[in-house]
Amino acid sequence: MTKLDKLIKHFECFPGIGGRQARRFAFHILTLQQAEASELADLITNLRGEVVECIGCRRFFARNGSQSTQCRICDDFNRDQSKLLVVERDSDIDAIERGGSYDGLYFVLGGTLPLLNSKEQAKLRGNGLKRRVEEKMLSGLSEVILGFAVNPDGENTARYVETLLQDWPKKLTVTHLGRGLSTGSELEYADPDTIKNALENRS
Amino acid sequence: MTKLDKLIKHFECFPGIGGRQARRFAFHILTLQQAEASELADLITNLRGEVVECIGCRRFFARNGSQSTQCRICDDFNRDQSKLLVVERDSDIDAIERGGSYDGLYFVLGGTLPLLNSKEQAKLRGNGLKRRVEEKMLSGLSEVILGFAVNPDGENTARYVETLLQDWPKKLTVTHLGRGLSTGSELEYADPDTIKNALENRS
Amino acid sequence: MTKLDKLIKHFECFPGIGGRQARRFAFHILTLQQAEASELADLITNLRGEVVECIGCRRFFARNGSQSTQCRICDDFNRDQSKLLVVERDSDIDAIERGGSYDGLYFVLGGTLPLLNSKEQAKLRGNGLKRRVEEKMLSGLSEVILGFAVNPDGENTARYVETLLQDWPKKLTVTHLGRGLSTGSELEYADPDTIKNALENRS
Amino acid sequence: MTKLDKLIKHFECFPGIGGRQARRFAFHILTLQQAEASELADLITNLRGEVVECIGCRRFFARNGSQSTQCRICDDFNRDQSKLLVVERDSDIDAIERGGSYDGLYFVLGGTLPLLNSKEQAKLRGNGLKRRVEEKMLSGLSEVILGFAVNPDGENTARYVETLLQDWPKKLTVTHLGRGLSTGSELEYADPDTIKNALENRS
Repeated sequence: MTKLDKLIKHFECFPGIGGRQARRFAFHILTLQQAEASELADLITNLRGEVVECIGCRRFFARNGSQSTQCRICDDFNRDQSKLLVVERDSDIDAIERGGSYDGLYFVLGGTLPLLNSKEQAKLRGNGLKRRVEEKMLSGLSEVILGFAVNPDGENTARYVETLLQDWPKKLTVTHLGRGLSTGSELEYADPDTIKNALENRS
Repeated sequence: MTKLDKLIKHFECFPGIGGRQARRFAFHILTLQQAEASELADLITNLRGEVVECIGCRRFFARNGSQSTQCRICDDFNRDQSKLLVVERDSDIDAIERGGSYDGLYFVLGGTLPLLNSKEQAKLRGNGLKRRVEEKMLSGLSEVILGFAVNPDGENTARYVETLLQDWPKKLTVTHLGRGLSTGSELEYADPDTIKNALENRS
Repeated sequence: MTKLDKLIKHFECFPGIGGRQARRFAFHILTLQQAEASELADLITNLRGEVVECIGCRRFFARNGSQSTQCRICDDFNRDQSKLLVVERDSDIDAIERGGSYDGLYFVLGGTLPLLNSKEQAKLRGNGLKRRVEEKMLSGLSEVILGFAVNPDGENTARYVETLLQDWPKKLTVTHLGRGLSTGSELEYADPDTIKNALENRS
Repeated sequence: MTKLDKLIKHFECFPGIGGRQARRFAFHILTLQQAEASELADLITNLRGEVVECIGCRRFFARNGSQSTQCRICDDFNRDQSKLLVVERDSDIDAIERGGSYDGLYFVLGGTLPLLNSKEQAKLRGNGLKRRVEEKMLSGLSEVILGFAVNPDGENTARYVETLLQDWPKKLTVTHLGRGLSTGSELEYADPDTIKNALENRS
């Protein structure tokens, strides 16, 4: 395999990128000045020196010169320490924080557990989550909220996390984000599962 | 205004049809054989002879020769008589029945109450709903479920129906369909209100 | 079949309308006041009294009280009488006139000849076109331009019209609209046929 | 600016990538193993050692161990040496070659000349094109075909190249790719310019 082909393969692993666009990215690299290409390569290699994984929630954050090993959210003791919301990816946290309706803690599981590929389990931070929960229960954690996508892989991931946490002392509650009609939904166009959830979760 | 323009205006009132498509419909009418055009006109004029409004839920149903004044659902006493789901349109009922997760009764309000146009209120079957609720409470109705779209007009309609039913004897509960993540939702792409509802309605 | 089902079938023949929307149209009819439904039915039945088919180009036009049997375009002797553009539908003429770059005459064939359904041929105005061409050659017609869609049915229709006109005296030229890159095209995303045409028709 | 922000800026320069996806790419980099990140960085830095710019058409090609300074197309004397097709990007050549309807030579200009930013001119290979044309006229080049996008920037680029080549000895012809209806076009939905071009380029 040529270097060009290898580079295209790397770009095909970028989120949301198919073969054709990966190829265009490779051509883009070829049009860069040598100095630009070197800077890009350098940033890719050294990003981790600056951006580190939070030892609490496991999201990435820019250290900005400080020596903190925890992100701004995990460091903030004004946040509600009784709730921990488990999400798939860093970008889920961004979306939730933009909304401003959640004030508890987070944990980034690092992906989903596909229904048909249990080997992926090794890539998830299941043990990390158990440790984090244990640790946080000392400072008042009482609820773990599962915030995965509403699709088969998301549901499978929820079952996996529930199993992980099932033998816990009674005072830990595991909850799921509410299901139902989302903004803009009309009954006429809603799918049967959403209608079912909307009916069950009426209030 | 010419007949052509008038016909286009009529077609522009068809659900989901804009000016350009209304014009194409009018041209389509011109290409029909005279016999086809007459049959279509005849069906439009006489549809109500055959399809009647159910005196219970107010949806339209084909009589099919019977003399019943109630639709199949309102006629079926095996359905749960304690619940009444209020919807905007007939087609909402179709969608819910396809899902098969609801076993109670329905009422078609006949539209929504737009936020900025309170005159529309006269077109809704508010009084009809009050009478239906009163009537059904005699046979065990205890809950009215509001099933409107999750948008400003839908919310306004819900407030209107709540007001209508607010001075009711205590045993009537008014509920709303559950809000939250619908099938296929991913947190990263969810809007703030949906995230808020999903968090509030966690279980 | 009930009247409701028959009406839905009629609506399914409307251009661009599928089963679900046809059903919504039928429900819409049921919500009309009797007077509105009657007016709509009346317009459908009587539209042809007012809108007539031009005896020249065969498009529909609103008579507006006049007794003319020809449309405004066919009636206008300032237009270039040497060119006749054959199109599928009335709405094609609207689009071309909006553009303002054509000054000749038109003929509406009334549809396309599908590749796999030669029976459709009977529905097209093939003989009408022949007569119109013959007639117009007396007043200087020298070119028939074929303006069908660039797809298999459009191409098949072009072959059919060419055959119709092939035994004509030599002074009649049959041309096709130019093929190539359309507005907004980028080579990278163009299909092979478009690239081929763009190369062949370079100038 | 942090390294993270700088990296996001780099990704925002990738073709077709906006701020949100650039951010996701940066997070993707953070999830790579150190070895993967290093390989990616290495490929970005060293791609040019292997992939070189053809001295003829200026596209990039993988050398595959050979010492050739020209790509497969420029090296192939069975191709028609009388035509040179000037395109914006390498990927345009890929698209044309897939179609198989062109047998001449190419030249990659390296971009377009935006209508409102004449400074971009310095980035284009205008002088390179002049030299290539001069060179190739010795071996029979007689036509330069301009193959730019059908949009304002593409048109402006065509004018720029025409000016570049205008004082050439008479035997050089500059042509443009044909404009008109592209595959799938229907007259009814075509824009006025496309209709105009289709009418002008009829044949």
